[in-house]
Amino acid sequence: MRVLGIDPGLTRCGLGVVDGTPGRPPTMVAVGVTRTPATLETARRLVQIEEAVEAWVREHRPDAVAVERVFAQHNVPTVMGTAQAAGIAMLVAARHGLPVALHTPSEVKASITGSGRAGKDQVGAMVTRILRLTAAPKPADAADALALAICHVWRGGATARVDAALQAAAVASARQRRAFTQARPSRGAS
Amino acid sequence: MRVLGIDPGLTRCGLGVVDGTPGRPPTMVAVGVTRTPATLETARRLVQIEEAVEAWVREHRPDAVAVERVFAQHNVPTVMGTAQAAGIAMLVAARHGLPVALHTPSEVKASITGSGRAGKDQVGAMVTRILRLTAAPKPADAADALALAICHVWRGGATARVDAALQAAAVASARQRRAFTQARPSRGAS
Repeated sequence: MRVLGIDPGLTRCGLGVVDGTPGRPPTMVAVGVTRTPATLETARRLVQIEEAVEAWVREHRPDAVAVERVFAQHNVPTVMGTAQAAGIAMLVAARHGLPVALHTPSEVKASITGSGRAGKDQVGAMVTRILRLTAAPKPADAADALALAICHVWRGGATARVDAALQAAAVASARQRRAFTQARPSRGAS
Repeated sequence: MRVLGIDPGLTRCGLGVVDGTPGRPPTMVAVGVTRTPATLETARRLVQIEEAVEAWVREHRPDAVAVERVFAQHNVPTVMGTAQAAGIAMLVAARHGLPVALHTPSEVKASITGSGRAGKDQVGAMVTRILRLTAAPKPADAADALALAICHVWRGGATARVDAALQAAAVASARQRRAFTQARPSRGAS
């Protein structure tokens, strides 16, 4: 499973691609940051972000895209631009028919470091360790994008395993019911 | 000047096209609403909004696009979706090389009704009167999109007139300075 993680932002948009299967250590495919100049009007900055995400999707052909969920209450002056950058990332993914998952910052931190309140440094250190890199990806937006992708692989894997377990349980239960029904004497036979 | 006004939203996105030149009453070209189902995931809803805005730009070929400015503090549960829908509208306009203007709801209300605190009904009534329609466009999102377009024509017109006046004043002032310089005796001539 290949996941493109996107840490949205107008000034810096982190992009990270990770390959992973549940139960095996994930590997990094690519990492980077797209910057758009604050002097440019917002609409044109959104076009640049669209072009960057489009290029990453075309080059790396991910199976899913994980985008950081943006909340209204965070960092008010820039939150609208961040929400719009996230919207563009979701749009591009959906246009390619890719599933889009939104993970909150605390979900990502908890998944990577064990604590939903971990700091940027801690996330960077764990991303470096998990992906067996020689140094933490810079800037933090790049590391965050990889953390999102790892989180999605792991959560996706967990969900898949739970789904498989439920499926197996349902099959077993249906078999048991069938066996029980067959074992029970029918009315006519009593 | 033809303006496409967009009142952004995931559930309902109002679209209105108005032709206008400063000093003449504006006329309505088209009005409508794009709806996306709440059952659809957000990324797919954004794709539908992109397709609708793209279709309106291609069909009506506006000279400018006016989008309602979304604030973080308004109506928190839906504001992220509204911001993302606005971002998509801005993206499509910028991709077509069109200027994008953002107007706040109170700017639009003040421009149309004389009061920044006017209610929906009052905006609808004034849009109907200004565009000489037989009935108020429904739903309110459609009337709001037309109000945005009218506001932009009027404000754009006002800005253009101010620019022209400043330009004329600058030319007159330069002429005056030139005349003054020529009239002053030069050092060598004294």
